[in-house]
Amino acid sequence: MSVSGATVMRREIGQVPSGVQRVVDAGDEAAAVAAAIRRAAPPWVTIAARGTSDHAAMYAQYLIETQLGLPTGLAKPSVTTAYRARLRWGGGLLLAISQSGQSPDIVAVTRAARRRHALTVAITNDVRSPLARAAEHVLGLHAGRELAVPATKTYVAELAVLAALVGAVSPASGITAGLAAVPDVIREVAARTGRWLTGPGVAVVDRLAAADRALVLSRGLHLATAMEVALKLKEVCGIFAEAYSTADFAHGPRALALTGVPILVVQPGGAVGAAIDEAVAALRSDGRDPTILGAVSDPDGLSLPVTLPEVLSPLAFVVAGQLLVEATARRQGRDPDAPAGLAKITRTR
Amino acid sequence: MSVSGATVMRREIGQVPSGVQRVVDAGDEAAAVAAAIRRAAPPWVTIAARGTSDHAAMYAQYLIETQLGLPTGLAKPSVTTAYRARLRWGGGLLLAISQSGQSPDIVAVTRAARRRHALTVAITNDVRSPLARAAEHVLGLHAGRELAVPATKTYVAELAVLAALVGAVSPASGITAGLAAVPDVIREVAARTGRWLTGPGVAVVDRLAAADRALVLSRGLHLATAMEVALKLKEVCGIFAEAYSTADFAHGPRALALTGVPILVVQPGGAVGAAIDEAVAALRSDGRDPTILGAVSDPDGLSLPVTLPEVLSPLAFVVAGQLLVEATARRQGRDPDAPAGLAKITRTR
Repeated sequence: MSVSGATVMRREIGQVPSGVQRVVDAGDEAAAVAAAIRRAAPPWVTIAARGTSDHAAMYAQYLIETQLGLPTGLAKPSVTTAYRARLRWGGGLLLAISQSGQSPDIVAVTRAARRRHALTVAITNDVRSPLARAAEHVLGLHAGRELAVPATKTYVAELAVLAALVGAVSPASGITAGLAAVPDVIREVAARTGRWLTGPGVAVVDRLAAADRALVLSRGLHLATAMEVALKLKEVCGIFAEAYSTADFAHGPRALALTGVPILVVQPGGAVGAAIDEAVAALRSDGRDPTILGAVSDPDGLSLPVTLPEVLSPLAFVVAGQLLVEATARRQGRDPDAPAGLAKITRTR
Repeated sequence: MSVSGATVMRREIGQVPSGVQRVVDAGDEAAAVAAAIRRAAPPWVTIAARGTSDHAAMYAQYLIETQLGLPTGLAKPSVTTAYRARLRWGGGLLLAISQSGQSPDIVAVTRAARRRHALTVAITNDVRSPLARAAEHVLGLHAGRELAVPATKTYVAELAVLAALVGAVSPASGITAGLAAVPDVIREVAARTGRWLTGPGVAVVDRLAAADRALVLSRGLHLATAMEVALKLKEVCGIFAEAYSTADFAHGPRALALTGVPILVVQPGGAVGAAIDEAVAALRSDGRDPTILGAVSDPDGLSLPVTLPEVLSPLAFVVAGQLLVEATARRQGRDPDAPAGLAKITRTR
């Protein structure tokens, strides 16, 4: 934390809108890679990522499957690194996502896929990193250097680059036009969240700061948002926060919704809105009091703008979660910029 | 629980070896579906599953990628059900895994994939279920009726059917021969676990029973084992148990390895053994005391036979975890057969 009390994490969250704007302005880069993808016409897509970038990969799976119709899966890097399997990559598209571009296992998967004739695209904040050198095509995040250990602006930049790429592959999707509106919506989300955090959100922060467990629920595209908010609650606040699809939640983890365990629900409305409402109603009938972030009727919830297409709202909603996590860490007396035991670059083999 | 004090869950875990034997004996069924897969020569595989079956799907991803070299991904059913996306399934292989065969979203994905010319294979314990009718090919689990709410014998049967199928697609893998040895190894695992649970395991059960949080770590093929043991600790024991790949663990969740949080490590040795050892050493240097299940030097750990090929050991090791969970529930005074708030068949849309 700086002496002024403003955290680096908070400042970097404030840089999210300008970062997304730079991705919008770099539309030509996405268009060039999109042209290569259209030429290759891959029948399927594999995404390699770890940690926070794994949540960007989860978003990408929904994004690509709903907008491009290509079956998409997430790579298990140890298949290549530990088991030394030779996958039949030929014809496929491998997207590798890493903020630092340093993780040896993601680099190894990218090299293997390229050697075996997949189309390879790296998405990274360091366009000179080993990952960028390993891939045939590179898309930079344009996020500027990230100093706080918890990734915030680079996560949103990863989503923005993925959206720009998919929008360029499918002009009919309308994503490119939608993306141009995102920076202003993120500013509005940050403003609303700031007001909420000094109003009804105070009690939510108090409960989270005192909790050792929490649940974060959503479905569909915003499962990535829920996962990312839960990971930040873990790494920044030391809370055992678990994210679930409201669909999987019914399969067993519902037993965890105990009295006293704070429950956050990311509710984008739209195609998954009714299913999420059902889960909220079930929780309330069990006597639980979930906090809704998003399309809210509840006066204590955090109402977020639902003006973006659902496929782009993950870029905006997650910022509310990042600000909530940052506020919770400060309430706990923790330094969100440098959580105990974590390094900015994680190298896994 | 029955009046005699033996739980149904325990009895059904005892039925695992004979169930796997029936899968071995039904090798012709797997061979017929394998012939169809060889004819279709799919360039990629998608697996649709939820809950416990999702962990079988995770095992299947490692199994198929390491043994067949086909890039494999896990489906997001809401892409089909909520977002109504039309995926380009043609040419691919869709494996749908569901104990009950009832979940509407898994059925919907299977129907969509079949309509759009994927090769579809259902793996289910009810060969007359909606899922079995939706798929072109069906492989039964041969597990007999499962009465306890927590799936145990059907989970192992799912792994066995997957192994039988992959073994039949690739005779050179040696999996078919290896599978024949599995029932006896499972009996040995159950016997060793039973002895351990009355020896050094007593203290582990005591710690787990008193905990509200826990971590379960592994890597590679046994990530599925770790996920499944964690899910059982959640649904049967109400513990916030999180499973992690030792690789992802370093990316943030390491902050959760607090004093007093029990840590289980599934250690198969083999290709991932050294990476897991590294994680254990890091935990110990932080003053933590993880309990090792598997290839163990620690006298307090649970030593399991490592005679199976690593690709088959998930069928055996998970039984140790199931018995540990069952013992923990009884120690807590809970009924493992019917955990609060859970139904045997979960229907998600």
